[in-house]
Amino acid sequence: MAILVVGSVAFDSLETPAGKRERVLGGAATHFALAASFFTDVRVIGVVGEDFLPEHEAVMTRRGIDTRGIERAPGLSFHWTGSYVKDLNAAETLATDLNVFAAFEPKIPEPYLDSEYLFLANIDPVLQARVRKEMPNVKMVAGDTMNYWIAAHRENLLKVLAELDVLLINDGEARMLSGETNALRAAQMVMALGPKSLVVKHGEYGATVYTSGGRPFRAPGLPLADVVDPTGAGDSFAGGFYGYIASQGGVTPEVLRSAMFYGSVMGSFACERFGTERLQEVTRAEIDERFGHLREISHL
Amino acid sequence: MAILVVGSVAFDSLETPAGKRERVLGGAATHFALAASFFTDVRVIGVVGEDFLPEHEAVMTRRGIDTRGIERAPGLSFHWTGSYVKDLNAAETLATDLNVFAAFEPKIPEPYLDSEYLFLANIDPVLQARVRKEMPNVKMVAGDTMNYWIAAHRENLLKVLAELDVLLINDGEARMLSGETNALRAAQMVMALGPKSLVVKHGEYGATVYTSGGRPFRAPGLPLADVVDPTGAGDSFAGGFYGYIASQGGVTPEVLRSAMFYGSVMGSFACERFGTERLQEVTRAEIDERFGHLREISHL
Repeated sequence: MAILVVGSVAFDSLETPAGKRERVLGGAATHFALAASFFTDVRVIGVVGEDFLPEHEAVMTRRGIDTRGIERAPGLSFHWTGSYVKDLNAAETLATDLNVFAAFEPKIPEPYLDSEYLFLANIDPVLQARVRKEMPNVKMVAGDTMNYWIAAHRENLLKVLAELDVLLINDGEARMLSGETNALRAAQMVMALGPKSLVVKHGEYGATVYTSGGRPFRAPGLPLADVVDPTGAGDSFAGGFYGYIASQGGVTPEVLRSAMFYGSVMGSFACERFGTERLQEVTRAEIDERFGHLREISHL
Repeated sequence: MAILVVGSVAFDSLETPAGKRERVLGGAATHFALAASFFTDVRVIGVVGEDFLPEHEAVMTRRGIDTRGIERAPGLSFHWTGSYVKDLNAAETLATDLNVFAAFEPKIPEPYLDSEYLFLANIDPVLQARVRKEMPNVKMVAGDTMNYWIAAHRENLLKVLAELDVLLINDGEARMLSGETNALRAAQMVMALGPKSLVVKHGEYGATVYTSGGRPFRAPGLPLADVVDPTGAGDSFAGGFYGYIASQGGVTPEVLRSAMFYGSVMGSFACERFGTERLQEVTRAEIDERFGHLREISHL
């Protein structure tokens, strides 16, 4: 079943211990869509500038991603400049040029309206709420956010959280959102704000999913000898996680567990090359092989 | 089969977000021995002062631990004062009073000489090496160390590492010992120093074991709503891990995986109360129940 994702389509200029890249294709919606495209149909809503060329769009369309919802606006695309030279686990933002993204007004193309699964990537919660409202019949809504919205736009964010089936954030964001340092209590407090399930990502250590009924479930991270560029790893995790759920047509405890593993798999691939390079060329056979690898390193 | 552990038997004065305790029984050998005692016979070598009373010794003997190797010396026992008020994941040392431990000269009682498994807890690597040499016929040697020995006694430590079957350290120690931030490469570099296997503990996220032949294996940490006192969690992990291995009479890939889970189980219990309180009253049934719980939260 189809996923509609709304979020940033951008260019990233990156410096990591493995090298430098200028203006590679990035953005949360891009990473998410590529990762999810291995599991199900994906439709993207975003905005780009005149620097977004057919070759960039082709990265998505080659994976069968529906890009009709990517609006062209006069000017330049969102451009993020970041460095991981000091710490591969923490991006240092050197520049954020919002450009056309500053005036982003998501518009849902008519053929997208029958999407069953909605993913609200990390954007202004006012826009997340608006898109949610315009898609009243979706079967499931998942979303992401970040420290900026938690700190400075809390009221707006709370309205989005109240409507979410699944929220995906990292440890630091869970602590910030809850004001609680204990991970389990923080998760319970975040879920009390609305999300029926909560996925907390732990970087290289994997991720934990909390549900209102049962016990938490932990998927390991894959130990990687070469982390080239962690940009988009969290979005790729979300794409693998949600793409798998959509492909199964619903969430059972078994589906949720496998979704966590597929999330971890796609996040690990994302780190192996710069930008979306690895996700562009990975195959479903490699994905399933790595799924088996993750099982092997975690199962008795 | 019997484990011989050499290490500190001490008193800890602790402050955590859950409260304060003065001079509770602690020390690496104590935590290790209690955790391991649920799986196999344990013998302890250490030194204590006149403040170590029959009631303290009884904590160990009630668990069937052989304490004949705990030497009494004039003066006070090793006393550590620490706080976790700022960060439950990082102990802040407020005072280290070595007392009788400063002149510790491990002596191996004759009845201990047939121990098949040796655990060198975190003490001066010169002493670790000496004990190792005096136990030439052990079947397996595991050990621990800490940042102080890695930084200031590296040459001595390297001699110990060359003789180890298993080294158990945490992420920070692995980075420090290898000079490498990537976890997988750091592990390979540490194993190149001697240990045939390496267990790296990740605090609340669990632990990873690396072996020279196969793939790494990860055991999850158990999400705990109440972390009362993390002191001794790493030693308790080591006790569960090594105690299980000794109880199985050797290491197969299956035994190693279960040992990692038992390590995580014992580490999680250790955190639930101050000092050794939880390990004193836990039952084997609770241990096996928690083992099943860990499996449930990590297996597809």
